[in-house]
Amino acid sequence: MAENLPPMEYRFLGRTGLKVSVISLGGWLTYGGHVEDEKTFSCMKAAYDVGINFFDTAEGYEGGKSEIIMGRAIKKFGWKQQDLVISTKIYHGQANGRYPNNALNNKGLSRKHVIEGLDLSLQRLDLPYVDIVYAHRPDRHTPMEEIVRAFNHVINQGKAFYWGTSEWSATEIAEAWRVADRLGLIGPVVEQPQYNLLERERVEGEYRWLYTEHGLGLTVFSPLKQGILSGKYNDVAAPPPGSRLAEGTGRSEFITKFAATWGDERWQKGLATVAKLKPIAEELKVTQAQLALAWALKNPNVSSLITGASRPEQVYENVKAVEVVKKLTPEILEKIEQAVGNAPNFEPLRFE
Amino acid sequence: MAENLPPMEYRFLGRTGLKVSVISLGGWLTYGGHVEDEKTFSCMKAAYDVGINFFDTAEGYEGGKSEIIMGRAIKKFGWKQQDLVISTKIYHGQANGRYPNNALNNKGLSRKHVIEGLDLSLQRLDLPYVDIVYAHRPDRHTPMEEIVRAFNHVINQGKAFYWGTSEWSATEIAEAWRVADRLGLIGPVVEQPQYNLLERERVEGEYRWLYTEHGLGLTVFSPLKQGILSGKYNDVAAPPPGSRLAEGTGRSEFITKFAATWGDERWQKGLATVAKLKPIAEELKVTQAQLALAWALKNPNVSSLITGASRPEQVYENVKAVEVVKKLTPEILEKIEQAVGNAPNFEPLRFE
Amino acid sequence: MAENLPPMEYRFLGRTGLKVSVISLGGWLTYGGHVEDEKTFSCMKAAYDVGINFFDTAEGYEGGKSEIIMGRAIKKFGWKQQDLVISTKIYHGQANGRYPNNALNNKGLSRKHVIEGLDLSLQRLDLPYVDIVYAHRPDRHTPMEEIVRAFNHVINQGKAFYWGTSEWSATEIAEAWRVADRLGLIGPVVEQPQYNLLERERVEGEYRWLYTEHGLGLTVFSPLKQGILSGKYNDVAAPPPGSRLAEGTGRSEFITKFAATWGDERWQKGLATVAKLKPIAEELKVTQAQLALAWALKNPNVSSLITGASRPEQVYENVKAVEVVKKLTPEILEKIEQAVGNAPNFEPLRFE
Amino acid sequence: MAENLPPMEYRFLGRTGLKVSVISLGGWLTYGGHVEDEKTFSCMKAAYDVGINFFDTAEGYEGGKSEIIMGRAIKKFGWKQQDLVISTKIYHGQANGRYPNNALNNKGLSRKHVIEGLDLSLQRLDLPYVDIVYAHRPDRHTPMEEIVRAFNHVINQGKAFYWGTSEWSATEIAEAWRVADRLGLIGPVVEQPQYNLLERERVEGEYRWLYTEHGLGLTVFSPLKQGILSGKYNDVAAPPPGSRLAEGTGRSEFITKFAATWGDERWQKGLATVAKLKPIAEELKVTQAQLALAWALKNPNVSSLITGASRPEQVYENVKAVEVVKKLTPEILEKIEQAVGNAPNFEPLRFE
Repeated sequence: MAENLPPMEYRFLGRTGLKVSVISLGGWLTYGGHVEDEKTFSCMKAAYDVGINFFDTAEGYEGGKSEIIMGRAIKKFGWKQQDLVISTKIYHGQANGRYPNNALNNKGLSRKHVIEGLDLSLQRLDLPYVDIVYAHRPDRHTPMEEIVRAFNHVINQGKAFYWGTSEWSATEIAEAWRVADRLGLIGPVVEQPQYNLLERERVEGEYRWLYTEHGLGLTVFSPLKQGILSGKYNDVAAPPPGSRLAEGTGRSEFITKFAATWGDERWQKGLATVAKLKPIAEELKVTQAQLALAWALKNPNVSSLITGASRPEQVYENVKAVEVVKKLTPEILEKIEQAVGNAPNFEPLRFE
Repeated sequence: MAENLPPMEYRFLGRTGLKVSVISLGGWLTYGGHVEDEKTFSCMKAAYDVGINFFDTAEGYEGGKSEIIMGRAIKKFGWKQQDLVISTKIYHGQANGRYPNNALNNKGLSRKHVIEGLDLSLQRLDLPYVDIVYAHRPDRHTPMEEIVRAFNHVINQGKAFYWGTSEWSATEIAEAWRVADRLGLIGPVVEQPQYNLLERERVEGEYRWLYTEHGLGLTVFSPLKQGILSGKYNDVAAPPPGSRLAEGTGRSEFITKFAATWGDERWQKGLATVAKLKPIAEELKVTQAQLALAWALKNPNVSSLITGASRPEQVYENVKAVEVVKKLTPEILEKIEQAVGNAPNFEPLRFE
Repeated sequence: MAENLPPMEYRFLGRTGLKVSVISLGGWLTYGGHVEDEKTFSCMKAAYDVGINFFDTAEGYEGGKSEIIMGRAIKKFGWKQQDLVISTKIYHGQANGRYPNNALNNKGLSRKHVIEGLDLSLQRLDLPYVDIVYAHRPDRHTPMEEIVRAFNHVINQGKAFYWGTSEWSATEIAEAWRVADRLGLIGPVVEQPQYNLLERERVEGEYRWLYTEHGLGLTVFSPLKQGILSGKYNDVAAPPPGSRLAEGTGRSEFITKFAATWGDERWQKGLATVAKLKPIAEELKVTQAQLALAWALKNPNVSSLITGASRPEQVYENVKAVEVVKKLTPEILEKIEQAVGNAPNFEPLRFE
Repeated sequence: MAENLPPMEYRFLGRTGLKVSVISLGGWLTYGGHVEDEKTFSCMKAAYDVGINFFDTAEGYEGGKSEIIMGRAIKKFGWKQQDLVISTKIYHGQANGRYPNNALNNKGLSRKHVIEGLDLSLQRLDLPYVDIVYAHRPDRHTPMEEIVRAFNHVINQGKAFYWGTSEWSATEIAEAWRVADRLGLIGPVVEQPQYNLLERERVEGEYRWLYTEHGLGLTVFSPLKQGILSGKYNDVAAPPPGSRLAEGTGRSEFITKFAATWGDERWQKGLATVAKLKPIAEELKVTQAQLALAWALKNPNVSSLITGASRPEQVYENVKAVEVVKKLTPEILEKIEQAVGNAPNFEPLRFE
C-alpha cells in the first residue's frame, strides 16, 4: 500500500546542483516477455508516484533491454525529462560478455566506446540526453586523459549533464580530477559503489578524503547485498539452487560473477551476521531490509540508494526506510556496530 | 499620445557592445484571457514604435505564460530578432513555486535546470535564442563552477549571447568572474537589481567596485517601487485591499513575497518620503513617476530601466522620463537627496 | 580576350594554409535589374575561368544585394565551395547607414551583430560557410575580448574558417592577438586595407612588424584608388559630375564618404602624380592600370588585390598585371618612387 | 582457405584505448568496373570474417573511389560501425594530382581543406564519422597551430575519434604535440610510415623517443615493400614492364612516384637482399611474405600492418603471418639481420 508512506526525501548529488531522491530505482528492471514488461512498468509507476525521481540503468544490463524498457516507461506515462534524473553507464557494452573478434571495441572507456556506447544507449532509451553518465568500471588500458576528454565530449555535445564513475579506486578518481583540472575540463562528480552493512571499507575508508576534497557524491548499489540483508535467506544453508546468487541466470557475465563471489564460507559468515541484526530490527518494529537501508542512508555522503523491485510492494517497502533513519539513535547504531563487527579503523583525515 | 515623445536614448549594456533602450518593457505582461492578450500586444507595439528595443521576461513569470505571449507578439508584428534585445531568466521554473516531488530539479542553477530551463523558455518564446539569459537568483546550493560552466554551455550552443545575474550579492558576482577567468570562460556582464529612490544601498554601495572592475551593467527592475513612487498611493493609508501589494494575486510565490515585505510601518514610511518628492515634481512640471525614473537614469551605471505597462499610455508616460533627465540639475538632485534622506555613505573606492 | 592571359598566380593568405589568387574579384558587383545581374554573372564567370578563386563581398555592399548576386552566381555555374575562397565582412549591417531606433544593434562588432550578421550573410549567399569573415571596421565601443570571442564562436560553429580585419590600426590588430593568445583562441590572420601608389603609409609603415610577428596577410582594396590610377581621369579637372567619385551614388553611406574625401586639392594633386606615371607605363608597353596593380603585387606581404569589374574585359585587363610584375626591375621601381615621391621613411625593424 | 588460420590478434593503437587487428586491409582496394567491385567486396568480407577490424583508406586513393567502394561494402554487409575501425587520410585531395587553378585549396592541411576534405570523405564513405583521420603528409606551408586546431575541430564536431600523421618527421610530430599541449588540445596519436625489412631507419631510429614520450602508435604501410619482399620478383631483372612498379598505372601521381623511386640500381640491390631471405623462410616452412610480415609485427611499437589484397586468398596468406611471429627466435632474427644488413645504429635513448 502506498498510503502510509513517509514523504520522499532528496539530497544533492555530491557537490552539484542536482537533487536526487534518497531511494532510487535501478538494476535490470526487465524480466523478459510482455507480462514481465508490465511488471517493470508498474514498479516504475509506483516509484514515480511516491516521489522517486532517479532511475538508474546501464548499457550492460540485459544486453541493452533494461534501457529499452525504461525508455518505454517514460514515453508510456508521459513523464517529462526535467522531472526525472536518468542515468546510464558505459563500459560493458551490450554483448553480455560475448565479444566476437570484430566487436572488441564495444566495451571499455576508449573515446570510441564512450561516444558510440552513449549514442546507442540514447537510441535505446529514446531520449536526447541522460542526466548522469557513469564509467561503469575503470579501464586500466585506456589513458585517463582519453577517458576524461571523452566524457567531457559527450557533455559538451549535450548528451549528458554530469559524469561519474562506478567501482573506481580512490586513486583513479583523484587522477581523473587531476587531468580535468589541468585541462580545464569537468571531473567525475559521483561514484557508484557497493555499500551495505557487509561491505563498508571502500565507502567509509578509501574514499573518505574525496568527499571533502572533490565533493564526491555516492549513489549506492546493492544496499541489501543481493537480498541477503533482507533476511530472506536467514534459514537457508546456501544460495538456493537455481537462484541468481547460486548460479547466475546465465544471462550475463556480471550475474555469473556475483554468484562466484559467494563461496560457501562467505555465505555462512554473512548469514551469521544477518542473524545478529534480526533482534535490532524487531526492537525497532521494522523489517530487516528497512533497517539495512536506513543504516546506509544515515551516511551523509550517500546521495541515493539504488534499489531493485519486481513488484510495487517492494518499492513501498524500500521507501519506508526513509522514516526509519530517525530511529537510528547513537545507541541503536552502537548495537548495529556490535552485530556486524566490521567498522573500518582509519586515522581521521587532517581536515575531517 | 505618442506624438510629443522625446527620441529614445540607448546605452551599452555594461561593458559589452550591445545597445539597449534606456527604458525597457518587462514583467509579467500577461493578464489572462483573449482580451488581456490584446492589451499586452498593444503595449508591446507601443513600446516598439517609440524606440524601445529591449523586452525582458522570465521562465518564472506567470508560469511561463509571459514568455508565450511575448513570443506571440514578436511573430504577430513580424519583428526581426536582430532589431530586438530579448532577455529571459532562469531559476524559478514555471511551477509558480509549487514543486511536486518529481519536479524539484525544475528550478535553481544546476547544470540540468539551466540547460533544460532555457530550452523550455526558447520553446515558449518560439525563438532560436535570446540575447541575454539571467540567473534569476543566486543558487547557494550549486557550486559556482557548475553555474558558470552551464551558462557558457548555452552561450556556446548559440542559445544566448550574454549572461547576467539578478539579485546576486557583489561577492557572488565576483566569484563567478573568478571562476570564469580561471577557466577562460565568459563571466556575467549584467546584474538586474531593484533600484529606485527608496532602495539604493546595493546599487550605489555594494556593487560599486564591480562597475569599474568588471564593467558590470545594470538593468533595473521596480524603478517605481511597485508603483508607490508614482504617487498613486499618496493618499492611501495601506496597500489597497485586493491589490497586488496588499495580498499578492495568489498567482505566484513572488508576488506574495512582494506583498509580505510591505508591513504597515514600511508602507507609512515610504508614503511619507513620496509625499516630500511631490513638490519637486510639481516644480519641474513632470509627474512623480517621471521624476523617479529620470532620477534612476541619472546613474550612469544603469543601462536600462525595466518598466511595466498595462496600457500604451503608460508606456508613453514612462518614455517621457528620458527628457526629464536633463532637468535634474545639481540643485534639484540635492533637493531630492534631502527629501529621501537615504544616500548611502561609503568610503570612496581606491580607484574611483 | 582571355586568350593571351598569363597563368594566374596564387599566394598564401598570410601565415595560413589557404591559397588565394593574387587578383581577386570584389566590391559591390551589382548594378541593379535583370540585365545588370547578367553583367555580374559574366564578370564572375570570366574571373573563375582565368583562375581567380577568391571572391570578396560584405554585408554592407548594396544593402546585402552583393551577397545575394554572388550566391546566385555560385549556384548558377555549379561551382564547388572547395574550389573557391569566399569572404564577407561584418560591421556595417545591410541598412545602408539608415538605422531606425530598433535596428541599432544591426551593425558594429558586438557578439550579437557578429553572429546575427554572419548568419544573415550566409542566408543571402545561400552557403553553409564562408572561408574568411572580416571585421569590416574596428568597433571601439565593443571590448576586444567580446570581438575575439565572437569571431571564434562563428569559426567553432563551422560558419567560417578564418577571420580577419579591415582598416584596423596595427595596435588594434596586436590587441586582438593578445586577447586571443591569452584565451587560447584564434587571432585575425588577414587585414584588408587600402593600398596603392597614392596610399602607402599604413601597409608599408604602421603594419610592418605584424607581418613577421603575427604572419599578417593583406587583401588589398582600391589598388587603383577608385580608378584614378588607371589614368582614365587624366584629363579631367575634377571628379566628373554624376560619377561615384564626385557625389556618391546616394545608394550608401560608404560611397558618399569616398566622394567626400576627394576635395578639389587632393584631386589635382592625385592627377599630377598619375600624369608622372604615364611615361613609365608607356616605356613598359603596359596600361597605367596594369602598372599600378603590378607595383602593389610586388609587395610580398600582399596576398591578393581585390579588383572590381563591370565587364569581362576589365577582368582580363587586371589579370594581365600578373605578368607585368617581372618587368618591375629595380630601375623601374626607382623611377616610380621618383614619380610618386611618397615612400614612407621608417627605421628598419629590429628583426627585419 | 580460411579454415586453418590462426586467431586474429589485436593491439592498442599506441597509447589509446582503441584496439586494432594486427593485420589490416587498406590501399586503393578498387580496380574499376562492376566485376572489379565484386573483387573488392569479397576481399573485405574475407578480412572481416577472419577478424580484421581495421580498414584504411584515403581521400587520395583513386580520386575518392576507394572511399566510395569501402562505404558500399559496409552497407552491403550490414556491418556496424562500432565493430569496425575505419580510417581515412586528408592531404592529397581527390584530383589525382591534377589541380586546376581553382582547385588548389583541395589539398594540403589548411583549415579549409582538413574540414572540407573530411566532410567530402564522409560523404563518399556514407558514414557520420571515421575512427582515425590522418594528415596524409606534412604540410610545410601551413602553420602547425592551424593544422592542430583543424584536426581538433573535426574531432570536437564528432567527425573523428583520433587523429594521426603519415610520413611526418619526428620533429614535426613533436611540434604538433607541443602546440597541442600549449592549447590544451589533442595531439596526433598514431603515425603511418613505411616499414619493412628494406626500410627501417625512420621507425627504428628517428621515431624512437616518440614511442615512450608520446605513446605514438604505428600503422605500417608497404610491409612487403610494394610486393618485392614476397619474393615474386626474385627472378626478375627489373620491375616488369607495364607493372605498377615500373611505370605507375598513370592513374595517380603517387603510383608514378613509387615507380620513380625504383631505379635499376636500387632494384638490383633489393632483389639481392630478398634472395638472401629465401632460405630463412624455407627453414621456417613459411612464405617469404609471411616471414616479412611476421618480422614487422615483432616490433612492439607496430600496432597494425596495412596489407593490400585483390583476392581473398591473399588476405588469408597475410593473416597466417600472425602465427609466424612466435617462430622468430633470437637465432632466426639474427639470421635475418645478417641477410638484410641494415640495422640502424643509434645510441640508446636516455630513458630507453
